[in-house]
Amino acid sequence: MQMSSRVKVNMKWNDPGLAWNTNTSNATAIMLPVDKIWTPRLILDNAIDITAQPYKSDVLVLRNGNVDHAVILFVSVSCEINLFTYPFVIGDCPVAINGWNQGSCGLILSFTDDITMSGSEQSGEWLTENVNITHDKRTYLSVTLSINPFSAVVTLILPSALIILADLVSFALPVQGGERNNLKVTLVLSFTMFLVILNDHLSSGTSCSPLLHYHFCFCLVNLVLSMVTSMVLTRLTSDDSILPCKCSKIIKTQNANLGHYGADAGLTETKTSTDQASEVASLQKIVIFLDNMDQKEQVANSNVGFVDRLDKICFCFFLFIDIIYIIIVVIVTRTDICKPKPLVIWDKEDYYFYFWDYFNDTSYNY
Amino acid sequence: MQMSSRVKVNMKWNDPGLAWNTNTSNATAIMLPVDKIWTPRLILDNAIDITAQPYKSDVLVLRNGNVDHAVILFVSVSCEINLFTYPFVIGDCPVAINGWNQGSCGLILSFTDDITMSGSEQSGEWLTENVNITHDKRTYLSVTLSINPFSAVVTLILPSALIILADLVSFALPVQGGERNNLKVTLVLSFTMFLVILNDHLSSGTSCSPLLHYHFCFCLVNLVLSMVTSMVLTRLTSDDSILPCKCSKIIKTQNANLGHYGADAGLTETKTSTDQASEVASLQKIVIFLDNMDQKEQVANSNVGFVDRLDKICFCFFLFIDIIYIIIVVIVTRTDICKPKPLVIWDKEDYYFYFWDYFNDTSYNY
Amino acid sequence: MQMSSRVKVNMKWNDPGLAWNTNTSNATAIMLPVDKIWTPRLILDNAIDITAQPYKSDVLVLRNGNVDHAVILFVSVSCEINLFTYPFVIGDCPVAINGWNQGSCGLILSFTDDITMSGSEQSGEWLTENVNITHDKRTYLSVTLSINPFSAVVTLILPSALIILADLVSFALPVQGGERNNLKVTLVLSFTMFLVILNDHLSSGTSCSPLLHYHFCFCLVNLVLSMVTSMVLTRLTSDDSILPCKCSKIIKTQNANLGHYGADAGLTETKTSTDQASEVASLQKIVIFLDNMDQKEQVANSNVGFVDRLDKICFCFFLFIDIIYIIIVVIVTRTDICKPKPLVIWDKEDYYFYFWDYFNDTSYNY
Amino acid sequence: MQMSSRVKVNMKWNDPGLAWNTNTSNATAIMLPVDKIWTPRLILDNAIDITAQPYKSDVLVLRNGNVDHAVILFVSVSCEINLFTYPFVIGDCPVAINGWNQGSCGLILSFTDDITMSGSEQSGEWLTENVNITHDKRTYLSVTLSINPFSAVVTLILPSALIILADLVSFALPVQGGERNNLKVTLVLSFTMFLVILNDHLSSGTSCSPLLHYHFCFCLVNLVLSMVTSMVLTRLTSDDSILPCKCSKIIKTQNANLGHYGADAGLTETKTSTDQASEVASLQKIVIFLDNMDQKEQVANSNVGFVDRLDKICFCFFLFIDIIYIIIVVIVTRTDICKPKPLVIWDKEDYYFYFWDYFNDTSYNY
Amino acid sequence: MQMSSRVKVNMKWNDPGLAWNTNTSNATAIMLPVDKIWTPRLILDNAIDITAQPYKSDVLVLRNGNVDHAVILFVSVSCEINLFTYPFVIGDCPVAINGWNQGSCGLILSFTDDITMSGSEQSGEWLTENVNITHDKRTYLSVTLSINPFSAVVTLILPSALIILADLVSFALPVQGGERNNLKVTLVLSFTMFLVILNDHLSSGTSCSPLLHYHFCFCLVNLVLSMVTSMVLTRLTSDDSILPCKCSKIIKTQNANLGHYGADAGLTETKTSTDQASEVASLQKIVIFLDNMDQKEQVANSNVGFVDRLDKICFCFFLFIDIIYIIIVVIVTRTDICKPKPLVIWDKEDYYFYFWDYFNDTSYNY
Repeated sequence: MQMSSRVKVNMKWNDPGLAWNTNTSNATAIMLPVDKIWTPRLILDNAIDITAQPYKSDVLVLRNGNVDHAVILFVSVSCEINLFTYPFVIGDCPVAINGWNQGSCGLILSFTDDITMSGSEQSGEWLTENVNITHDKRTYLSVTLSINPFSAVVTLILPSALIILADLVSFALPVQGGERNNLKVTLVLSFTMFLVILNDHLSSGTSCSPLLHYHFCFCLVNLVLSMVTSMVLTRLTSDDSILPCKCSKIIKTQNANLGHYGADAGLTETKTSTDQASEVASLQKIVIFLDNMDQKEQVANSNVGFVDRLDKICFCFFLFIDIIYIIIVVIVTRTDICKPKPLVIWDKEDYYFYFWDYFNDTSYNY
Repeated sequence: MQMSSRVKVNMKWNDPGLAWNTNTSNATAIMLPVDKIWTPRLILDNAIDITAQPYKSDVLVLRNGNVDHAVILFVSVSCEINLFTYPFVIGDCPVAINGWNQGSCGLILSFTDDITMSGSEQSGEWLTENVNITHDKRTYLSVTLSINPFSAVVTLILPSALIILADLVSFALPVQGGERNNLKVTLVLSFTMFLVILNDHLSSGTSCSPLLHYHFCFCLVNLVLSMVTSMVLTRLTSDDSILPCKCSKIIKTQNANLGHYGADAGLTETKTSTDQASEVASLQKIVIFLDNMDQKEQVANSNVGFVDRLDKICFCFFLFIDIIYIIIVVIVTRTDICKPKPLVIWDKEDYYFYFWDYFNDTSYNY
Repeated sequence: MQMSSRVKVNMKWNDPGLAWNTNTSNATAIMLPVDKIWTPRLILDNAIDITAQPYKSDVLVLRNGNVDHAVILFVSVSCEINLFTYPFVIGDCPVAINGWNQGSCGLILSFTDDITMSGSEQSGEWLTENVNITHDKRTYLSVTLSINPFSAVVTLILPSALIILADLVSFALPVQGGERNNLKVTLVLSFTMFLVILNDHLSSGTSCSPLLHYHFCFCLVNLVLSMVTSMVLTRLTSDDSILPCKCSKIIKTQNANLGHYGADAGLTETKTSTDQASEVASLQKIVIFLDNMDQKEQVANSNVGFVDRLDKICFCFFLFIDIIYIIIVVIVTRTDICKPKPLVIWDKEDYYFYFWDYFNDTSYNY
Repeated sequence: MQMSSRVKVNMKWNDPGLAWNTNTSNATAIMLPVDKIWTPRLILDNAIDITAQPYKSDVLVLRNGNVDHAVILFVSVSCEINLFTYPFVIGDCPVAINGWNQGSCGLILSFTDDITMSGSEQSGEWLTENVNITHDKRTYLSVTLSINPFSAVVTLILPSALIILADLVSFALPVQGGERNNLKVTLVLSFTMFLVILNDHLSSGTSCSPLLHYHFCFCLVNLVLSMVTSMVLTRLTSDDSILPCKCSKIIKTQNANLGHYGADAGLTETKTSTDQASEVASLQKIVIFLDNMDQKEQVANSNVGFVDRLDKICFCFFLFIDIIYIIIVVIVTRTDICKPKPLVIWDKEDYYFYFWDYFNDTSYNY
Repeated sequence: MQMSSRVKVNMKWNDPGLAWNTNTSNATAIMLPVDKIWTPRLILDNAIDITAQPYKSDVLVLRNGNVDHAVILFVSVSCEINLFTYPFVIGDCPVAINGWNQGSCGLILSFTDDITMSGSEQSGEWLTENVNITHDKRTYLSVTLSINPFSAVVTLILPSALIILADLVSFALPVQGGERNNLKVTLVLSFTMFLVILNDHLSSGTSCSPLLHYHFCFCLVNLVLSMVTSMVLTRLTSDDSILPCKCSKIIKTQNANLGHYGADAGLTETKTSTDQASEVASLQKIVIFLDNMDQKEQVANSNVGFVDRLDKICFCFFLFIDIIYIIIVVIVTRTDICKPKPLVIWDKEDYYFYFWDYFNDTSYNY
């Protein structure tokens, strides 16, 4: 993560070579162009990009050699903030402004106590909470950043929770009509699109992926399982078996029976010629027709009863899973399982390149 | 928020070291290269990025030492504009062009009265309304910016209002068919997608989130509640209870009765053998069948009547909520609840670093 | 709007200080390093960003002091092109390359007549039509730009026209089924998404919003009104009143009648015990059942007839509105209602800052 | 189109002013700082942006004055590649690295024959096929670029072909149900969204729009026409006329007849009081009811037969159009109708500005 | 692929020209400004962009001429990592930091053994695994990078697998209703949108396209074939032939028969005037009507049986294809079919330009 800031650094030091006594001049202070005198160069040990501009082009020098100077630093520092509990994140970002005293010679930087980071400008959703001087081996500025969770809650957590809720409530719709399947398919596919679009916002590259990634994974799998369950239940309402290979036997025998009865009835009609008999036969055929309709409905009803019981079990299962999931999420966010290692800035071995030069003749002008 | 501008600053000052008298030369004015003479350096106290170019490479110097110079500044300033009532926003952005007189020595900048900010170029949707010189502790330029609300109204407010309207009107559709549920699901999911896409446009990071964020939150929750209500009402049309656990009892008893009657009627038929009797029995069975259909329809109708009354109550509830919401929004935008603190530019303690140097031998050339 | 160009400017001038006579040297021309002699600095009065590089690092100087030099300018100028009739836009963008003669001293730039803007490179969809020298108060280059309307027509105008067409044709679908409502909802929501995505492409910030914005507004409102009309008509097919509060009375009385007749018929059946009578009673009940179905259908048909007439009126209304709209759009684009004010580059008061300096002791080296 | 490359240019030349003889020094070669000697400046005539860095900060100079130097150029050149047959494109992009000899004085650049463009880095999907030295009026590098068509085929051509295929196959669905209309609407709207998203990828600004643009246009119009046809056919299945204004006459007369017959039958019932007669009357009413159902079905069937024939004609029409279209596309891509004019780099008149200066007193130091 | 890093390089060398003996001065070490002495310039042979800043502005020089210096390099190197098995990728990226010894004169860089790449900052999803010094012809740093596959698996592989699963399970839905077609169309179109959005993330430009591209291709074709199969099966349930040209014959003959019987029965009714006979005739007509319904249902059922068997075959076919596909993918990822050629950095012929200059008179000052 990068943090960009504009820091104005006021510096005061004593340069004995610039002092003068009253013999030389009566003036108590002079202004000197900043590029004509020596000024200390600040070092940012964790900077990615740094641009330094003198605040004024002229520097005030007092008679005793005290110099008063200011520099505007536009710095970008990289700092690793634990995004595990995103979007509820508070983290520290060190800005290691230093003089340099790695060898025996060097500058030691002395901080004053009252600090206000001025014009600090973060990228996007981060807010500056606090700026402290941290005395930890070396002295550096520690900028405490936090995310305003409102935006992420509205666009990431709220919609996903509402989609899961809609998925649970959709169990209220009847299994038989196509309505429930339609709804669940729409939910799954919308969530997929949602996931793809969200992916741009969520970076992953640290050792601790945000919990939100796993949350979306869970939601997706949950929705797909719910959809598949719904489809299989729909299948069961019309047939008795789940597998598509055995599904049309019963319907065919029923149809055969129906045809048989119908043919039988038709046969009887042609034989008997008395009106009364034909009348009775006609009525019987009508009764047989209605009986068949009744029987089919009964078979369907027994199927429906069985599927309704299965449906209730599935609903309770998914409700149970969701409740368990919410409990686990709450526990995990409380216990801080995943902690990234702090970014080491100073305690490392840097590259050392040694040069041997083979110049026969060198002519530089110093 | 950043504002980028191109400002041309004309400067006039008197440099006694550049004056000459008629003894030296007869010329009334000479042109001097700009990098060979002293020119004042302007300071922007709230600048994020600043690039200064001399307007001309040569500067006109009059005989009395008056210098006429111009500088082109490409400045980016950061200013905090209250976005609470976005997209109906008007705000002031200070451009703190200054000389520097923080110590005893310094330059004091004197503004002229007639001001036109030339070539001001804002990012995207902001319009420059006005440029004033503000005399507030220090003198600075105050650029009044406003947003053209047309684009945001068309793409943010109008569609969300129309979606809420469509949700209300969708209560006109019958509860029984799947049509209303389909429509409400489509509305919810489209609004979710809409929200994700919109999120890129709406930054949140200030203490005052724009009211629009809360508006979209309300719309989303409103749509989801309306969808859930519609699903539960659909459930109630077929069953009497809301909970899926108790829902199939009545259907089963009815089916049992139907089967019983049917079996009973079939039993009667096999006993009596006279034609007349069988004819009557057949007709009775048909009547029983039609009676059953009638009964089922009546049960369904009584359910439908109950659900229709519930539906009317829900519709009135959502209509009431929406009207209350509109009233609240109008009141809140009128009263200016949320006011961000003004950006403090000058009245703060900056960093002060003190340097002690340990050089044994220093050899700089000034 | 920004336009970025690479302009190669060939410059010729006479510098008497560089001339020599044959006594000094025999050479007719010498090459001098460009950073060692005076070269004129070009000024772009409406530039946002400008980078100048000498074309060659050495400059040809003739014996009489004529200097031949070339500069490569990478310029970004801001110019306001009237986007009212987007995507059919042709506009002029001034590139105000100038010497400077605002005071008494200065350079006057003389243009040659034959001009070709070389390597001009615009952002995205703009094409360079023409480059002219315009003699208007001051002399500047006028670059005529135009947009290739093909892409915008294909992705903006064609789909919106086709969606409106589809909305009109969807009146051919029956009001009763859910099909038409489904279609109209899909059209509205797709258009909303379409609008959000498009919004990125269409900037608004000038006083004249492109007509396209209003076009999309109209389309959206048109589609929503059409959808709402369709929903209300669907409501009317089942009920007689629009308002949901009064909608279930007639159904309930009919149901009551049906129940009454059914109960009445059932009562008759238990009384009469003769077969013939029961047979007649059974047949009468069947006839009553069928009569009821007939009546319901008739009521529904009378509703349908009424709604069909309303539907025809709505269709004609929307067709009329669309035709009127097309006529208005054609008229408005012909008459050029909205003309932005030309960008004023030179006739403005710039900032003047006056400096008084308080230095006691100044030591600059000129 | 822009192409960015990193080119390392090795240069060798003889600078007699740097030569020395053995009297001066014994050394055969010395290293000189690169900013202290004259180095040739390379000119890129079609560069948009160019950054040159010396490869080494020290330059090897031999005793006879031969200098061995290398420059790293980060160049962006603009070149116009014919995108007509996108994504099957191969094009040449000139990189006009030159010395300058436009006047009498100048440098002539001599290329070596063996060339490898090192570290060439293109934007996105372009592959460097070949780098040649082209001797065409002037000598320049010609970089042959090609697009890997795989990605564009997968995301642009394959989906559009599959959508058209799905549209054709959707004629297999029955006209009467809402299924086919639903499908076609979904296809049209998805294609619209598809088009909007794609528009970002396809630039248009050259005189030759890619054929793909016209392809998507055709697909969109094709889909919309197919959808409109389907809607109108659906209308025809229920009514006989296409126009919505004449559509409900026949239904109304039939309803009237039905009502008349029903009333007539009811009248007969009340008159005859004998059981047998009433029985017969009841049965006749039932028969009339069933006859009416039969008649309606017959009317609907005759409509369906007519619409089915129309449907077949429409299917054949769209199939024919698609086949013709494919043939035309193949022919057009074979014949190379649209060829953009080659980018003229050198044969143009540049700007010439003449300066007259009015300085009274000029004091420059060379 | 670009990799951006911040590398701090500590350098130590001996500059005999800077040494002094105790006669000159007693000091053991002095600080010299970095721009006043010679410092070695590092060369990155595969850098796209490089910015070097001295770590400190002053350099420590010991009495014996040893110089201790540090440089901060912000480097962007281009390296080709084999993305064939994306998102499970591990690859090496060389950072060729070198002195220069291409001619006889030059600097040789000597690496130390303990290396930590500090502040290494990759773009997006890449993680730095390891940094090694590779001794391969030349010595360079080899940065081992890997992708965290979590994000890509969640947003690319998981959804596509779930969509294919949903497509297979959708065979459980009945062929006759429009439900299955609806679902499959939604799946196809969502996958298309998914593909377009994904295309932005997946770059193709190398010789080895990632396997994921082919995976998405397969998924798309698979879904479309499944959808087309489903549509054709739906057609077959209502008709006997697939082609739309022969589909309405049987329906028409049946309708004719029905009409004939109806007319026949109506004829019989008008002839016989006895009540009993008319009663029988009425009942016979009812029976004929019901028989016709029965026959139609039987024809439909025989169709349904045939289509159900076809459907089972199609399901098994698609299941088989998917299983085969998974096996092939596993095998291909195991065998590493596609290996890109390693990026050649040093073993190439660079451009050589020879300059002949024609200056008559040259006056440079060294």
